[in-house]
Amino acid sequence: KMAPGIGGFGGLFPLGDSYLVAGTDGVGTKLKLAFETGIHESIGIDLVAMSVNDIVTSGAKPLFFLDYFATSHLDVDLAEKVIKGIVDGCQQSDCALLGGETAEMPDFYADGEYDLSGFAVGIVKKDSVIDGKNITVGDVLVGLPSSGVHSNGFSLVRRVLAQSGLSLNNQLPGEIVTLGEALMAPTVIYVKQVLDIISKGGVKGIAHVTGGGFTDNIPRVFPKGLGALIYKDSWVIPPVFKWIQQAGRIEDSEMRRTFNMGIGMVLVVSQEAAHRILGDAKGAYTAYRIGEVVSGDGVSYQ
Amino acid sequence: KMAPGIGGFGGLFPLGDSYLVAGTDGVGTKLKLAFETGIHESIGIDLVAMSVNDIVTSGAKPLFFLDYFATSHLDVDLAEKVIKGIVDGCQQSDCALLGGETAEMPDFYADGEYDLSGFAVGIVKKDSVIDGKNITVGDVLVGLPSSGVHSNGFSLVRRVLAQSGLSLNNQLPGEIVTLGEALMAPTVIYVKQVLDIISKGGVKGIAHVTGGGFTDNIPRVFPKGLGALIYKDSWVIPPVFKWIQQAGRIEDSEMRRTFNMGIGMVLVVSQEAAHRILGDAKGAYTAYRIGEVVSGDGVSYQ
Repeated sequence: KMAPGIGGFGGLFPLGDSYLVAGTDGVGTKLKLAFETGIHESIGIDLVAMSVNDIVTSGAKPLFFLDYFATSHLDVDLAEKVIKGIVDGCQQSDCALLGGETAEMPDFYADGEYDLSGFAVGIVKKDSVIDGKNITVGDVLVGLPSSGVHSNGFSLVRRVLAQSGLSLNNQLPGEIVTLGEALMAPTVIYVKQVLDIISKGGVKGIAHVTGGGFTDNIPRVFPKGLGALIYKDSWVIPPVFKWIQQAGRIEDSEMRRTFNMGIGMVLVVSQEAAHRILGDAKGAYTAYRIGEVVSGDGVSYQ
Repeated sequence: KMAPGIGGFGGLFPLGDSYLVAGTDGVGTKLKLAFETGIHESIGIDLVAMSVNDIVTSGAKPLFFLDYFATSHLDVDLAEKVIKGIVDGCQQSDCALLGGETAEMPDFYADGEYDLSGFAVGIVKKDSVIDGKNITVGDVLVGLPSSGVHSNGFSLVRRVLAQSGLSLNNQLPGEIVTLGEALMAPTVIYVKQVLDIISKGGVKGIAHVTGGGFTDNIPRVFPKGLGALIYKDSWVIPPVFKWIQQAGRIEDSEMRRTFNMGIGMVLVVSQEAAHRILGDAKGAYTAYRIGEVVSGDGVSYQ
């Protein structure tokens, strides 16, 4: 018995006049950088972000979150730092931390290491669900800025780091932060902002830009026969991506299907809504007109 | 923002006239035995069981389940075996497999190893929630049989195995199954049976017997001032526990606060309901009158 909605960003379960929307994710090998930098206070924000940003793409308001924390031998101080981040993430997304499991698994994890997974459930009225099916040619792609790499692409990041000869304590070239700080910047939680934008109407589809970048994630919300045209220089690419690309000598196409490149959430909206959102954005928050819907398929750049 | 219900077996989130009830768990170091025996087809049943058996203790009907599967390098054949068990577990508990995450985490897990966590969400009307608060002296403890060790206590099991000089391919002494087969027997999913019993009335509290055994799990459902008196010889202790105790020279008290000892679910019911449940049980399923509610606290044995 499989429910509808698999293949979207969250799974949808019908309940009366609503859908429950559920998502689960971990933070991948970003954890290795937490181990190396000793920055454990914000990885919980990343964990919550990965799941709640998925479920808000359906227009669902997150209700609650649960975490699973697995390690070989429990280090209470370390676990408290991680849980603190999870609590922060739940506050940022206005959802309850309903429970969790701390699993001690001897011989599973290296000393001082752990794995995390998270699970979020939200709710949306059936007649308000956002599913992309009304997207048409000429709709506008609005991008919301990321804080950096967020929680995807860290296997590639670690390879580039190893090749570069730099350490996480070195400065990000040209910037005042270290590479460790830039790479560990917590994932933006878009929940409140996106729900606010949705409430004003005209939002037809939303893509959470995770592993696979624009290339894999934007088409997931499009009806057959439609594609995305992205305006290449329409937003600010954060310095950390420029460093990754140069240090790793990575092609544009690989960058774009691995990283968010500075845009963590893409809203597909009517032209009227775009006008309003981009107007509202002045001052209150940053949003970019990054492209438009065209006939065809996939993602192209101009 | 913490929700009520933490400390019970599942977390409760109010939604209209109902509670959503959510639980998360893994299968602990039972996974190591899966790696050693090569039995990967039923570990997914254990995974689903751990979460759905938790949420059914509130009287909640499981709606859906999500899994998180983490490994260093994805082995598709192996993952398919694991997922097959998860699908089986969802069918046994009549809930939807709503989604999941397969995480490739290089350098996190040894070759051929993986970790699993699962999340289940159920629903129960507020006026039907089972929370133990009406339990009184003289109520009856009804036990439902386990299939063996289920998914807890495997760190101790592995120590005993190592001391015993036996391998997982040896026969369980006096039985026709191997130690590996006996220890890997999938956790019983009690959902349908427990919901059926609940529907007939008189069920006041339910304890899922996991890590901590009777000692830690039964008191979780009791109001202050009440304890459990267990009739020691009122059910059949499976042979695998006798072997563990003898091979490991383990005290009764340690056995009882580590293992389920043959009873995976304890229902606290009125005397009338006990009469009916134990009558129904003849033929259709097995249930034992294993004890009663007394004034005091904790769990005692006679």
